[in-house]
Amino acid sequence: MSMQTKYLLEENQMPRFWYNIQADLPKPAPAVLHPGTLQPVGPDDLAPLFPMALIMQEVSMEREIEIPEPVRDVFRLWRPAPMFRAHRLEKALGTPAKIYYKYEGVSPAGSHKPNTAVPQAFYNKEAGVKRITTETGAGQWGSSMAFAGSLFGLQVEVFQVRVSYDQKPYRRALMETYGARCVASPSNETVYGRAVLAENPNHPGSLGIAISEAVELAVQRDDTKYALGSVLNHVLLHQTIIGQEAMEQMQMADDWPDVVVGCCGGGSNFAGIAFPFMGHGLRGGKKSRFVAVEPAACPSLTRGKYAYDFGDTGRMTPLTKMHTLGSQFTPPGFHAGGLRYHGMSPLVSHCKELGLIEAVAYNQVECFEAAVLFARNEGIVPAPESSHAIRGAVVEALRCKREGKSETILFNLSGHGHFDMMAYQKYFAGEMSDALYDEAELAKSLAGLPNVPETA
Amino acid sequence: MSMQTKYLLEENQMPRFWYNIQADLPKPAPAVLHPGTLQPVGPDDLAPLFPMALIMQEVSMEREIEIPEPVRDVFRLWRPAPMFRAHRLEKALGTPAKIYYKYEGVSPAGSHKPNTAVPQAFYNKEAGVKRITTETGAGQWGSSMAFAGSLFGLQVEVFQVRVSYDQKPYRRALMETYGARCVASPSNETVYGRAVLAENPNHPGSLGIAISEAVELAVQRDDTKYALGSVLNHVLLHQTIIGQEAMEQMQMADDWPDVVVGCCGGGSNFAGIAFPFMGHGLRGGKKSRFVAVEPAACPSLTRGKYAYDFGDTGRMTPLTKMHTLGSQFTPPGFHAGGLRYHGMSPLVSHCKELGLIEAVAYNQVECFEAAVLFARNEGIVPAPESSHAIRGAVVEALRCKREGKSETILFNLSGHGHFDMMAYQKYFAGEMSDALYDEAELAKSLAGLPNVPETA
Repeated sequence: MSMQTKYLLEENQMPRFWYNIQADLPKPAPAVLHPGTLQPVGPDDLAPLFPMALIMQEVSMEREIEIPEPVRDVFRLWRPAPMFRAHRLEKALGTPAKIYYKYEGVSPAGSHKPNTAVPQAFYNKEAGVKRITTETGAGQWGSSMAFAGSLFGLQVEVFQVRVSYDQKPYRRALMETYGARCVASPSNETVYGRAVLAENPNHPGSLGIAISEAVELAVQRDDTKYALGSVLNHVLLHQTIIGQEAMEQMQMADDWPDVVVGCCGGGSNFAGIAFPFMGHGLRGGKKSRFVAVEPAACPSLTRGKYAYDFGDTGRMTPLTKMHTLGSQFTPPGFHAGGLRYHGMSPLVSHCKELGLIEAVAYNQVECFEAAVLFARNEGIVPAPESSHAIRGAVVEALRCKREGKSETILFNLSGHGHFDMMAYQKYFAGEMSDALYDEAELAKSLAGLPNVPETA
Repeated sequence: MSMQTKYLLEENQMPRFWYNIQADLPKPAPAVLHPGTLQPVGPDDLAPLFPMALIMQEVSMEREIEIPEPVRDVFRLWRPAPMFRAHRLEKALGTPAKIYYKYEGVSPAGSHKPNTAVPQAFYNKEAGVKRITTETGAGQWGSSMAFAGSLFGLQVEVFQVRVSYDQKPYRRALMETYGARCVASPSNETVYGRAVLAENPNHPGSLGIAISEAVELAVQRDDTKYALGSVLNHVLLHQTIIGQEAMEQMQMADDWPDVVVGCCGGGSNFAGIAFPFMGHGLRGGKKSRFVAVEPAACPSLTRGKYAYDFGDTGRMTPLTKMHTLGSQFTPPGFHAGGLRYHGMSPLVSHCKELGLIEAVAYNQVECFEAAVLFARNEGIVPAPESSHAIRGAVVEALRCKREGKSETILFNLSGHGHFDMMAYQKYFAGEMSDALYDEAELAKSLAGLPNVPETA
């Protein structure tokens, strides 16, 4: 028997449309509110931040939204992405379950992030934008936006959380290789950055602060817009190409997932693989379970409150209803930097409230265990973020073993770990522990959520 | 016009045979000699080091050698590898030339090295071998062998040059993730290593020393064999899958290369892309030019002597006729560690002597310039080794521009640079200079070549 089964689509099978889950949900997601008026925001309110094409995608109820040809053209560099059957992992676990994984680490930036960076660059370029500001933690998103910007001739300015800027110079070098400018946040380049630095000149920064800085600059300048790498509806929409492809590949395999697993930080890679299958079920097709795996150190879905909150620490963004740990919450440091955000995407949160998805949280050491097991059996070294999905899939596979069930499990391997070998080094040296958040700090942060009447 | 043209083979178009250039060369390559007797070595002389299947490949004159199905099965994880037309790079250079590149960075180790690590692991496993010893510099080869060993259940022990072991812990972590044991060389685990350390306890190590250590252990133990990642005939043979695929892809593109370019250290990735096209020409098909690009800091083909020499510093290996800087030569430190070897593959050297290939040498700064130009236009960040091939292709493309010729250029992009961002960081910080070797040291090293009579 083959130990490596790859399901690869032809180039002309690459999806021509993104799938919009909003068309199929039994109930629309709560409105986005203006933080001042608490009234629903309209497209014009978002115009200083995003080009209109992306705003229209943000609010669209159309089921299918066409992927522009120049975007598909860039996607050809690495898409369609492969799906594999993990025969060796199944054998190692002794499970009767069938495990498949979709692999998004084949992109030039090594993760799924270019799936949305490329269309965001395209629509901004079309709208005459000259410069994109954005934020990044460890740098997956920043390097993806830098990559996309270089291909469409856009200047990209990345506010990188200072602690990552100082400690992880490699992804910064990657951003610079793509021609982007990288600034440590908090910085002296914004009013908000200067205010944070005035209070604490050695502030280590956070994603929430970096967002505030990037947003501030975009609002100020006519030729500049802002880009976000997760959370928003249009970002999740762009990632559905993952699941759209996986659906075709599952048909090639003559199989269909009983359970779909993804790691979940802002929610975009999880939604990317889950939403197309979820829509299939909502429209009367075979129903799957959907398991969002988040880090126990930053558990918005499993421990957060479903409430209106800001997307940034500086409280500049609109209010969205989501599972949140509070915009003033600072998650502890852990290696899956891409999952280190206080809020969950409003659409994923809404699906959780509707009972369409399940959520679990795992600690980082057990996730690295799963990652090493995976690497030694399947040959690919996963990103720390993706290791959460692997852990989730392994837990499901072992449940199948206990229950004697031959279920089909599909998970999204969102990126490779070649930039994260420092974390593996710590794991092997026995220097990795589970990062814990402070319960009192979480309670305080949740108590400080903005006061939005139920009727809003 | 599409800015990204990918030529992707179907899985069932993956080559079933490796191509052996020895079948088509107008003159056989000089024999490999026993260092004691100066007589040609027979298969039995090599049996302590390699399983017989690989030894038979080393000396085979058959044109086609079948790729075992379990090897092709593992290859499916990333092969067939894509070939791209570099439209954006062509435009940036303003050249009438057509530039294509074959991309080998899609493997789990990020380079072409698994193309030979996997069959080497397979044949050793078949022969009942339990443990593989090998050497590595920066770690591309060691991590590839570790990857292959993990899939076939072989214990892999890697002697890593101490200076890389200390300064570049990431690829070491990658080897450990795949379950390999990594030892800093010179080590206390071998007679030769102890002798080197006795003379200099702080010896930084070299590839030649690490080879001596790995060979020593393999010879000592019955259950242990040795693996080499380049130079040898069977290694080059395994890499011809690159060129075999590229020939099919060139046919898909309805084109054929006027010139094929590869970076050249030990010679395996260059031979991998060049030999199948070269054989096509030797058998009466369209002839291409072949340009081997080596680092100016370690220029065996352009500045070495074509002579019999040892493959290692400890003078334990058989003698092979090759372009060599002398086995006692220590190349200066530079970022393309994979090209930092005193000798050139005997087969590539032989082709050079036959006038079948050309060789050029470039400095590292001009290669990084080419790499950054490539990354910003084509989206893939190249390994420092591969940047030499890009430089070579750019030079050819600019010649075409001067001459007004629309030639077809094909180069091998042997790996991605995600493990090498430190080098890019130095480049952008202006801290990179061209590494120069000491002319006096080279002269001394060449004067010390073993004395082998012309008649041998």
